[in-house]
Amino acid sequence: MGEVYIGIDLGGTKIKGILMNEDGLIVNQYSTSTGNNLDNLFEVIEKLIQENKAMSSRICGIGVGCAGLIDHKNGITIESANLPFLKRFPLRYTLYKFTGIETTIDNDVKMGAIGEMFYGEGKGVKDFVFLTLGTGIGGAIIINGKVYRGITNHAGEIGHINLQTAGPDCGCGKKGCYESLASGSAILKYILYGIKMKRDTMILEKVKGDISKINTSLIVEMAENGDRLCLEALTESARYTGKVLSYLINILNPEKIIIGGGLSEVENILFPVIRETAQLYSLVVPFQNCLIIKAGLGTESGVIGAAQIALLQYKGIEI
Amino acid sequence: MGEVYIGIDLGGTKIKGILMNEDGLIVNQYSTSTGNNLDNLFEVIEKLIQENKAMSSRICGIGVGCAGLIDHKNGITIESANLPFLKRFPLRYTLYKFTGIETTIDNDVKMGAIGEMFYGEGKGVKDFVFLTLGTGIGGAIIINGKVYRGITNHAGEIGHINLQTAGPDCGCGKKGCYESLASGSAILKYILYGIKMKRDTMILEKVKGDISKINTSLIVEMAENGDRLCLEALTESARYTGKVLSYLINILNPEKIIIGGGLSEVENILFPVIRETAQLYSLVVPFQNCLIIKAGLGTESGVIGAAQIALLQYKGIEI
Repeated sequence: MGEVYIGIDLGGTKIKGILMNEDGLIVNQYSTSTGNNLDNLFEVIEKLIQENKAMSSRICGIGVGCAGLIDHKNGITIESANLPFLKRFPLRYTLYKFTGIETTIDNDVKMGAIGEMFYGEGKGVKDFVFLTLGTGIGGAIIINGKVYRGITNHAGEIGHINLQTAGPDCGCGKKGCYESLASGSAILKYILYGIKMKRDTMILEKVKGDISKINTSLIVEMAENGDRLCLEALTESARYTGKVLSYLINILNPEKIIIGGGLSEVENILFPVIRETAQLYSLVVPFQNCLIIKAGLGTESGVIGAAQIALLQYKGIEI
Repeated sequence: MGEVYIGIDLGGTKIKGILMNEDGLIVNQYSTSTGNNLDNLFEVIEKLIQENKAMSSRICGIGVGCAGLIDHKNGITIESANLPFLKRFPLRYTLYKFTGIETTIDNDVKMGAIGEMFYGEGKGVKDFVFLTLGTGIGGAIIINGKVYRGITNHAGEIGHINLQTAGPDCGCGKKGCYESLASGSAILKYILYGIKMKRDTMILEKVKGDISKINTSLIVEMAENGDRLCLEALTESARYTGKVLSYLINILNPEKIIIGGGLSEVENILFPVIRETAQLYSLVVPFQNCLIIKAGLGTESGVIGAAQIALLQYKGIEI
């Protein structure tokens, strides 16, 4: 009887679930919207368990990656900006009671880094940084093949590096953090401000004047079609990313910086600017020896990492 | 017969040497100026060997900390801005041939971090950053009780974090690096520019108009006596340090940031500003859990660390 593992990526808008086998292959998947409580999470897990009954496999573990600050040791979600119902919630125990299956929870970006480490761009790489560029910006640091956590499990809070003394408000309560300047939300704000300032752009026409319909995908599409404002918003974001990458390169001298999250899909526009800016501010040798590269698993790093952590937990391998 | 170790701190202007016993106690010391070739280094080592003959101890190892990029594995000094005669020089082999004693060489800031780890503020601390504020600015990162080096041994190049897009020229060839804005040299430039701009200061009178006599010690003395320009130059430097510390806190979430080097002696003026600025730009919990503190060994961290690395090498302990 084969062994399979459930991996869950519990995001602010969407829950992704997979069944992964021992070889890291996804054998089944199910996704739905997140909702305002745990019901949809239970639904995803229940669905995967049901699907598995048709196969002759045993589910040996569940891994859940969740945005925000997670006490992975005690299995408690401390704080998650987009999942208010998970404030100080014993998620691991709750899921274990519901399923009878050993469960592991951790921060979604750390899960993504683990996914990349085993099946993506992090394979065989001792020291790397994993960065997710999406609605928010997250980071995780792998040192010597292990997740580096720091003294209070906050290591890798790259999104909150200050880049403007009194810049835009950030979700963390401070001003001018990298995230507040370069995330998907920041790009959207850049466009909306451009529209307000009557900058030349085709995006307003595209949404027939309904600015609520403007989102990152549309901004990317317009940029690819040559819209100057959209292109400018994306390159502005990429320049901030490049600067922060230079900090990571000078401080950590990593072998790779792996970039995931929705925005990493816009490789052709963002990556040349990111690399050029990183080079401008990094020491020569560390820059030359650091590969800045798109996540090998695309936007699936997190959910695969979540299943992988369940596998490692089952095999008794510490990470 | 007791065992002793030679520790050398090979700086741009001064060579410090010590004999350290197994308990980390300094039993003898000798210092001289650096000079333009290896003669003075040989002199310091020869002197310590001679001094030791009067004691009934055996010298079991030599450790040399040296500014710049050092290939510690092969014992070669690659590049050292203030020690041009050490460019691509096999220093370890040369000293071994001269003394017949096993020799270890490494970067001076890494040596300082090791000194602090064993005998200073880093004792019992798993993850910390060691920063030296002097004529230049150096950094070393200790993770899990070991020196973290990165892929090309450049990890910890904190002095070259860019803080101003097109700021002052830096020794690394770039512009606006933290070091170019906050080091002892930068503080001196700040004062000289202030004098040129006819700012109100007593320092010019103090040196009787001879600006070549102005140095960091004098600036500190004048600041302590309330000279506004000198105080301003130091607090400006401290603000840059605080900002960089916030980056280290957000990225690495270390238990301590230990500050050594000559400028760390100016604790009463610099540290309150450093802490306040670091707090302004750090996430709350990681800041609250990070002690920003002066090096326990003062300006001796490097030379003690150098002797300690010789001891560890002799005992076969990898670091």
